[in-house]
Amino acid sequence: MTRIAVDAMGGDHAPFEIVAGAVWAAAEYGVGLELVGKQDQIEQCLETIQSEGFLSDCGKAGRKRRVRVDVKSLDIKITHASEIIEMGEAPGQAIRKKKNSSIVLTVNSVATGSSEALVAAGSTGAAMASSLFGLGRIQGIDRPAIAVTLPTMKKPIVVIDGGANSNCTPQMLKQFAIMGRTFSEKVLGIENPRVGVLNIGEEAGKGNELAQATYNLLEEEKEKFNFMGNVEGRELFLNHCDVVVCDGFVGNVVLKVTEGTSSLLFKMIKEQFKSDFIGMLIGMLAKPFMKRIYERINYEEFGGCLLLGVKGITVISHGRSKAYAIKNAVRVAKEAVVTGVNSKIAESLS
Amino acid sequence: MTRIAVDAMGGDHAPFEIVAGAVWAAAEYGVGLELVGKQDQIEQCLETIQSEGFLSDCGKAGRKRRVRVDVKSLDIKITHASEIIEMGEAPGQAIRKKKNSSIVLTVNSVATGSSEALVAAGSTGAAMASSLFGLGRIQGIDRPAIAVTLPTMKKPIVVIDGGANSNCTPQMLKQFAIMGRTFSEKVLGIENPRVGVLNIGEEAGKGNELAQATYNLLEEEKEKFNFMGNVEGRELFLNHCDVVVCDGFVGNVVLKVTEGTSSLLFKMIKEQFKSDFIGMLIGMLAKPFMKRIYERINYEEFGGCLLLGVKGITVISHGRSKAYAIKNAVRVAKEAVVTGVNSKIAESLS
Repeated sequence: MTRIAVDAMGGDHAPFEIVAGAVWAAAEYGVGLELVGKQDQIEQCLETIQSEGFLSDCGKAGRKRRVRVDVKSLDIKITHASEIIEMGEAPGQAIRKKKNSSIVLTVNSVATGSSEALVAAGSTGAAMASSLFGLGRIQGIDRPAIAVTLPTMKKPIVVIDGGANSNCTPQMLKQFAIMGRTFSEKVLGIENPRVGVLNIGEEAGKGNELAQATYNLLEEEKEKFNFMGNVEGRELFLNHCDVVVCDGFVGNVVLKVTEGTSSLLFKMIKEQFKSDFIGMLIGMLAKPFMKRIYERINYEEFGGCLLLGVKGITVISHGRSKAYAIKNAVRVAKEAVVTGVNSKIAESLS
Repeated sequence: MTRIAVDAMGGDHAPFEIVAGAVWAAAEYGVGLELVGKQDQIEQCLETIQSEGFLSDCGKAGRKRRVRVDVKSLDIKITHASEIIEMGEAPGQAIRKKKNSSIVLTVNSVATGSSEALVAAGSTGAAMASSLFGLGRIQGIDRPAIAVTLPTMKKPIVVIDGGANSNCTPQMLKQFAIMGRTFSEKVLGIENPRVGVLNIGEEAGKGNELAQATYNLLEEEKEKFNFMGNVEGRELFLNHCDVVVCDGFVGNVVLKVTEGTSSLLFKMIKEQFKSDFIGMLIGMLAKPFMKRIYERINYEEFGGCLLLGVKGITVISHGRSKAYAIKNAVRVAKEAVVTGVNSKIAESLS
């Protein structure tokens, strides 16, 4: 049975929602768990879940329902971690100083083979740094990167890097292209994925120094990368390519602006329907349709993003994740174990 | 009477839609025009508009209506320009080489006082470069920047730079903060605007080198800038601040991802309502409500963005602008003349 290690102390809603999501996934996807964190708190969560269950909106942005899980029937291992790395801490320093922190020990459980993959919803920097040092890099990759999958009208598009590296070199972006292609092909099932450079104009020579130099690097091996050239922010959702590379600063901005814009639009729609009585009636009728779209773009459905380039599987979840998002993150981790995306990346580099 | 110079040859739909939008604005807002471009083509457009009018969806994403303008009653000057700068050309070189291009002569008309402001929908780089060289910089400003206004639930937020400078220094971003504050206060009427740095985390020390250094610079003069610290992409639409600074690469990505996301959502909503017969009925009922939201976020309503930091008024419009967007761009230009935003920036720097 695949065992997934979960940092029970990471994220805005830790530990309860994290533990709840993990056991929910264990029951639904048939995986074993290694819950890493303060033992007494984790045991307390498990007891509450066993006796009362927990409430979740199940990613549907509506009324919550009570989820029941028979915790006793699951294969759960608890690994005690006495420390926690907080959001504000400098990742590099923190993982060296707090060797008994939940994230360091979660990574350790994968490094030692006790678990096969890990899920972390705490500090992205700490998850990345501890994965880098604990699991090691795949040969040929200088820096791991986060692969973010965004919905479009047709096939999903991979944005890489989604926030692991704020300062990047063109060579790093070329490596992101290699990892992104493998991810798109092996995990999303897209044949011969097309790669683009995120830029602010279509023509060669547009954009900042990084985008220009990356364009030139990929253009040199156009065939290998199935390189489509520059892609603008507007075109991300138009399926002009399957993988788009950028530095982690820009990638993270893209991800969060996408979230912010959709959230704004849904609020505007809600407000607009509330403007008069007829509107409220039509709004009620339209609700199930709007909900279906909400579900399609809701980050909770995606659960988490894979950190590519390390020798092991790290799934990074949103800091705001509740049980439903964590459940899906564990699913992503399990799928990554099955597809063996990291070993496929190593193969494509050798 | 205020006279606005319009580059009739710039933009995907030049010259007809540009000329149509300009004369529409002249009739509606009572401004004089200086249309710059190929004289015969401009005259041809004016004749067609006089005799047949033109079709426009008036920013409503629905059926087009015929707009009639009595061109003969307007104060229109035509300035012949024999050359055009194309989208792919390197801006700096192009404006030096093509001294008789429509954009160079449009800027020239403002520089010589023939017109009071200009509107350009062609190459942003060329519009910026020619404004920089033709109008000159405001003292204390190293590089002009584009101020983009994004809608939120409450007050609009200014993102600066929206695409004029791909490579920036912290000092430049500090100047953008000064210009953005003046714009927010004088043009948008926001009292003591709050400034933030676009970043990928809230804590100090987050993000790339540029964001970190800019944070430190603004933090040093916290009171003066009413500095709120870092702002994430998701929070742009939550009114956590009124002005957010970033380099033009990131700012342009933000702008286009916002456009792309809203366009994707509207498509998804349309598709969802079409999924069955009941949906089609409800969709028809919901249409007027959706339209009102579309209008609220439609870039055509904003018309164009001001290039701040030059000694003159340059409004940069979307390359895809049709008549309705150009009409609004001329309105923005007229308002900028009235508020005198550039002289206010000069004042705030002296």
